[in-house]
Amino acid sequence: MTRQELIEQIKQKRSFLCVGLDTDPKKMPQCVLDLYDPVFEFNKAIIDATASYCVAYKPNLAFYEAYGLKGMESFVKTVQYLKEKYPHHFIIADAKRGDIGNTSQMYARTFFEEYDVDSLTVAPYMGEDSVTPFLQYEGKWVILLALTSNKGSHDFQMLTTVEQQDGKGADEASPRLFERVIKKSQEWGNEENMMYVVGATQGRMFEDIRRVAPNHFLLVPGVGAQGGSLQEVCKYGMIKDCGLLVNSSRGIIFASSDEHFAEIAGNKARELQQEMEQELIKAGVL
Amino acid sequence: MTRQELIEQIKQKRSFLCVGLDTDPKKMPQCVLDLYDPVFEFNKAIIDATASYCVAYKPNLAFYEAYGLKGMESFVKTVQYLKEKYPHHFIIADAKRGDIGNTSQMYARTFFEEYDVDSLTVAPYMGEDSVTPFLQYEGKWVILLALTSNKGSHDFQMLTTVEQQDGKGADEASPRLFERVIKKSQEWGNEENMMYVVGATQGRMFEDIRRVAPNHFLLVPGVGAQGGSLQEVCKYGMIKDCGLLVNSSRGIIFASSDEHFAEIAGNKARELQQEMEQELIKAGVL
Repeated sequence: MTRQELIEQIKQKRSFLCVGLDTDPKKMPQCVLDLYDPVFEFNKAIIDATASYCVAYKPNLAFYEAYGLKGMESFVKTVQYLKEKYPHHFIIADAKRGDIGNTSQMYARTFFEEYDVDSLTVAPYMGEDSVTPFLQYEGKWVILLALTSNKGSHDFQMLTTVEQQDGKGADEASPRLFERVIKKSQEWGNEENMMYVVGATQGRMFEDIRRVAPNHFLLVPGVGAQGGSLQEVCKYGMIKDCGLLVNSSRGIIFASSDEHFAEIAGNKARELQQEMEQELIKAGVL
Repeated sequence: MTRQELIEQIKQKRSFLCVGLDTDPKKMPQCVLDLYDPVFEFNKAIIDATASYCVAYKPNLAFYEAYGLKGMESFVKTVQYLKEKYPHHFIIADAKRGDIGNTSQMYARTFFEEYDVDSLTVAPYMGEDSVTPFLQYEGKWVILLALTSNKGSHDFQMLTTVEQQDGKGADEASPRLFERVIKKSQEWGNEENMMYVVGATQGRMFEDIRRVAPNHFLLVPGVGAQGGSLQEVCKYGMIKDCGLLVNSSRGIIFASSDEHFAEIAGNKARELQQEMEQELIKAGVL
């Protein structure tokens, strides 16, 4: 999917919602547990109930891999279902991969050829040759971890960094690690094939992000269960063609654990869509 | 496996070799391609030929995931084969995972319960809560990326880092990012459940690594195809109870592509074992 197509979907749906399919069998309602492939059946019901209110789905691989081959089969079926029934929804495989060049190539093949998803989350620690193999596929996207939503984001991502060869200390112009990641990676990819993960919990830091990535799309997890504020994210992070995909996982898919789970997930997604519509109008995107 | 058990294996085998099972079907010899599960059959032959000369095996998940469900089945069968026939070999799942807490928990469950491997490589970018869920399993290990073997290791890992609240610039005591990762992570794990990845291509940097991790085991990829020197790694990185697992993948498993591939892989592993034995004697470990 191209950037322009994604923007059109956002305008059409009046939403920049991404629904996170972190499908944990332990949290699924009793009524799906007896079906042949409960994880897939649960996802299918959630997708049908939420598709009108969102532009993207983000299955997190951890939840599928945890159930071995059977779990991966549920993942594959979910992606196939999305591609057949909802071909205009953007699919993010949240896998946070990244390895030396020949190995990242294998991961790129897996996700962009075998599963044929639109995008993959990638961890930046190993640098250029761990990221660029994912950028060789037309219409596919790398979503690079920049400033994540969790407490541990303070351990390394926030550190001020200095090039050793500078021979001088840190000053006001010295970027923090997440800013360095965003700047450096713009030598590898561009606004048409790279987004950044920035946690909704980071609040005003979106201003700093927009200083180094004024036009890139940002994937923003952490609204809902993790406590991030949609209004704050939009205030500091939204740009003229939106530039945001805001994800909610648990807050939507596990909003109810009874037989009406899908309907209630749909309601939650619609509530978020309506808030998002207001933000899009306020920012002049609609 | 405990640290003490691993050290005993090293002394018994007179080797600290890890064989990397980066099993790329495109590079496998013709003679295995017609078998029912070529990847597993190839691994089985390589394992039988090399087990006497190594203490660890490291399947890289990228190469199995690239072939979807069938690939993951080959991975599972390889791990099962190792656990049944060679229960004293240390198994490293090279997957470079790491995510927010509840998601890392799922990955930990996958690798330490479902697959029951001894250790997993983990990426540090997301900080404490992305790593600690893997440390809750007795006898299991986190192998944290510190200073990797690839060119991209210079992009971020080598940067000098300063805590913002210090209010002062970088000085000689300011750690580089990889040193910061090693120091900080010692608040989460210890020498009994955490190792670090340090690329063999990093040469004298092993001196710097040993300053911040004097007793930890290091997993050292990059000998062979990537150009690292075993002698240099040992000179600067070996400690009194060895403290090294040196990995070779392509240099062993794809040393030959004819029907004698396993025998030749065994020869390559024995050559490395013999060099390692000399290093162990030189350092007084044996």
